[in-house]
Amino acid sequence: MKKPFSPFGELGLIEQIRRDFATTGSAVKLGIGDDCAILRPPSGCEVLVTTDFTLEGRHFRRDSHPPESVGHRCLARGLSDLAAMGATPLAAFLSLALPSTMLAEAAGRAWTTRFFNGLRALAELHAVPLAGGDTSESPGGKQALILADIVLIGSAPKGKALRRSGAFPGDALYVTGQLGGAAAELATLLGRRKRIINLKTTDDHPHLFPEPRLDVGEALLRRGLATACLDISDGLSTDLAHLCRASGVNAEIEQEALPIHPLAGKLDAQAALHAALHGGEDYELLFTAPSSVTMPSSLAGVPLTRIGTLKARRTAQPLMTLLAPDGSRTELKPGGWEHFSKPTKTEKKTPR
Amino acid sequence: MKKPFSPFGELGLIEQIRRDFATTGSAVKLGIGDDCAILRPPSGCEVLVTTDFTLEGRHFRRDSHPPESVGHRCLARGLSDLAAMGATPLAAFLSLALPSTMLAEAAGRAWTTRFFNGLRALAELHAVPLAGGDTSESPGGKQALILADIVLIGSAPKGKALRRSGAFPGDALYVTGQLGGAAAELATLLGRRKRIINLKTTDDHPHLFPEPRLDVGEALLRRGLATACLDISDGLSTDLAHLCRASGVNAEIEQEALPIHPLAGKLDAQAALHAALHGGEDYELLFTAPSSVTMPSSLAGVPLTRIGTLKARRTAQPLMTLLAPDGSRTELKPGGWEHFSKPTKTEKKTPR
Repeated sequence: MKKPFSPFGELGLIEQIRRDFATTGSAVKLGIGDDCAILRPPSGCEVLVTTDFTLEGRHFRRDSHPPESVGHRCLARGLSDLAAMGATPLAAFLSLALPSTMLAEAAGRAWTTRFFNGLRALAELHAVPLAGGDTSESPGGKQALILADIVLIGSAPKGKALRRSGAFPGDALYVTGQLGGAAAELATLLGRRKRIINLKTTDDHPHLFPEPRLDVGEALLRRGLATACLDISDGLSTDLAHLCRASGVNAEIEQEALPIHPLAGKLDAQAALHAALHGGEDYELLFTAPSSVTMPSSLAGVPLTRIGTLKARRTAQPLMTLLAPDGSRTELKPGGWEHFSKPTKTEKKTPR
Repeated sequence: MKKPFSPFGELGLIEQIRRDFATTGSAVKLGIGDDCAILRPPSGCEVLVTTDFTLEGRHFRRDSHPPESVGHRCLARGLSDLAAMGATPLAAFLSLALPSTMLAEAAGRAWTTRFFNGLRALAELHAVPLAGGDTSESPGGKQALILADIVLIGSAPKGKALRRSGAFPGDALYVTGQLGGAAAELATLLGRRKRIINLKTTDDHPHLFPEPRLDVGEALLRRGLATACLDISDGLSTDLAHLCRASGVNAEIEQEALPIHPLAGKLDAQAALHAALHGGEDYELLFTAPSSVTMPSSLAGVPLTRIGTLKARRTAQPLMTLLAPDGSRTELKPGGWEHFSKPTKTEKKTPR
């Protein structure tokens, strides 16, 4: 006999969140339950704000992403933006719209519970309370989709937040961790490379469960190591172009220096390079420091790799150049994705 | 000959927003263009945060709501939450997903421009910069919908923000402005009462262009007039129940005291009362004050009306009671809408 599930409605969902999540914390004076949440940022700090959509069919597929991964990645996107500025998270806010059937049916409620389990595990790891948000039934009738928007509020000492615009010619260019893993794992998930990559042999899941580099970002800020920083969410080539434009510099990347993720390393050399340069969603940090700075080989347990050097802006030269092992120079163009102009990797495989 | 519109993409949209909107302001140290925005709240203040969805087919219909109204209402929802706590807006953030066709086609771009015109007009009225957000192509192919989530950040002096939980037995109960207008106008829009209400004879548009009561909220806080406050977004009966539960009190409403909006006043008496009690989306403030306080008849140009009194919580008695002109007492039950459990007024008429 099927266990009956009565629709428990929006208020029921909010009650469940209040019960299961930390909704207040050191900086959260008033959490879920009033018109607004009230935060009290640490004194001497500025407040940082970022918002990120997680839309079914756009950022995930219900049939290929476990619900825990969807919840994890939803929060990770926002946390990674805070990490990129060296900020400390104060609170998260979630706007969530669900198809009406999801809260009425056992399978839908199970999905929702697992989504929140994934979100909560990452929130607890970084001690981030879920202090509010909005809930709604998603529109579209039988075509209704799961729609989420995560808001992260963080703090950083006044005037100290890491920006994209602080780099200088001559600065060295670094990345955290490894590149191309998320793209390689996504390809596996979408069933394209099953014969090349065997998920079970890997230790981590760079696409399904990316690790926002909060500890690295905070350490870079605290120790004054970085002149500029951003996260690699759209792919190294796209995000490096953002940094170059914001800082008014050109960049040279040494191909041999790129730390290729083992999952990408199992592809052929050209595909591995493509995943590392353009793959996107690695959520590593890309940062710069004067070449005179002695950079540690790792920060907060995460390896740092020098991958290139910034040059003075010369408009006659390419914004970004790739130096091949044989000494040849190629212009590097932004190859990440821009949401409106072409389908994302996820979208390509999710015609509706 | 049709004027050609090339898709200008997500970055193009963001550039247009940066050009057209104030994206920095006194409290916004860094606006659109980095991983996070940076805010510097006034010293001695707490930070208030609220998020609100505006979803096509759920909160508006493209065929009955002018785009300016959709943009206005999107921002108004968040501003009203700040008003309810007596807060001053610091910045807004907008996550916006649009169907891919909208930025490629003239009609879609015209819709988007008019949406932002509506949002900007209200933002400028209250000097609120649009400091960031997210953009995406909305999923669902040909079924893709317009999806927006607005985030408002505000400030209030430490410990002074108005809450739902501060009311006491004996306090008088007040509302700003007039009730039932939004529901009455929505009914007109949906074509149900064309013979009863003629839009052209009205001065204002309580549904299409509600006025968030920021000045009233700030004045209530500054002058220490209110013990509790919230906005009437879900209908007086639903929001009064929230206040009663949060404050641990019962409430008595005097039916004759209810300030009925002229648009609702054109309905028959029973329908007018229903619109005023349960209509929702009036975005007026509901607040309480000790009965010893001499309340002005208006604040910031908005009339204030005493509509009832709070009583000690007695569980044997109804949470809320309606006192009719003939002296009879009726239990008042929350009749606003809860998103997941039944269709909203808008949804009822928007089968997809």
